[in-house]
Amino acid sequence: MQLFGSTDSGHSYKVRSFLLLTNTPHDYQWVDLSNKPSAFLTISPFGEVPVLLDQGQVFCQSNAILIYLAQTSGQFTGGEEWQGAVEWLSWEANRIGFSLPNYRFALHWQPQPAEVMHYLMLRVQADLNMLNDKLATHEFLLESGPSIADISCSAYLFWLDQVGINVADYPNIKRWLAAICQLPGWSHPDTAMIPSPD
Amino acid sequence: MQLFGSTDSGHSYKVRSFLLLTNTPHDYQWVDLSNKPSAFLTISPFGEVPVLLDQGQVFCQSNAILIYLAQTSGQFTGGEEWQGAVEWLSWEANRIGFSLPNYRFALHWQPQPAEVMHYLMLRVQADLNMLNDKLATHEFLLESGPSIADISCSAYLFWLDQVGINVADYPNIKRWLAAICQLPGWSHPDTAMIPSPD
Repeated sequence: MQLFGSTDSGHSYKVRSFLLLTNTPHDYQWVDLSNKPSAFLTISPFGEVPVLLDQGQVFCQSNAILIYLAQTSGQFTGGEEWQGAVEWLSWEANRIGFSLPNYRFALHWQPQPAEVMHYLMLRVQADLNMLNDKLATHEFLLESGPSIADISCSAYLFWLDQVGINVADYPNIKRWLAAICQLPGWSHPDTAMIPSPD
Repeated sequence: MQLFGSTDSGHSYKVRSFLLLTNTPHDYQWVDLSNKPSAFLTISPFGEVPVLLDQGQVFCQSNAILIYLAQTSGQFTGGEEWQGAVEWLSWEANRIGFSLPNYRFALHWQPQPAEVMHYLMLRVQADLNMLNDKLATHEFLLESGPSIADISCSAYLFWLDQVGINVADYPNIKRWLAAICQLPGWSHPDTAMIPSPD
């Protein structure tokens, strides 16, 4: 199994995190997004990271990859709450997995007018409020325990400090992230996504 | 099977369209989004349409519902290209299912500054270009024929005229939408989503 991903890509981190949390042997290939190698572009259907190669098949779209990995490994599926996990992944792609990465990208790499930053920040806050409310009564997003829903929805939140948000303002999220950090094999994205030393 | 949806909600239309294209008996319940009934809010996990009730279970998030319906009915799955269908749904949620609905919403119902409109329109155009390129060599998004990938990604595109975009500028998309319209049972969102006459 070979994973193509990159530093600062929370979408790549979702897949890397799943593989680390499940102790799945894999080869992590760091991709330079400012100069994508042609070998990578040839296999990547959307020209984006992450891409997973498994048994000669190409997989893309982080949440679709999580669905594939959970179903084939039987891990982090949510069990009987499987449909709930798929629902959270759909929510993530359209909400916190849009608002937060795009706000962060604009802040650090591609400046946008103040009006756009305000628009995106309002969405970030609405999405954080939704998560914080849902986590008021549960340790993880599904009642049955940690699942791909948590892996997906939390990915970019380990960088909240990079967008000037104090996680303490969202106490249920703070507790939830701390619980995820305690899972065996967990690694912060800044550690997990650096290029291999070889 | 009971579907809660609304006029002008392309996300609701995805599910309604699947049910019509598969001739699946169901009760369509129109929801007034400006005054959501408490009975609806009680069952809707995110307070949003669509919501599907099936065998006592509540389903939400349009793409997650499409995954459920395709898997349980065996229709519009893409067959061996199932993973490709799931990938397109992930892409939709994060790209054309974000940019186009939010641009249209701002244009007609919730005005945004010109800078925000410009930001969203650039994304709409990038997403339409991606679709148009992918459709250059295929009739539908998957080689095997029409699937939930087409139902999801096309939903809001039947309203392109409402955002001032001439579909003729994207000839492959124009041909693709025409092919979808020819599927037995297909209905335009303006027809499919109006309240039942009873």
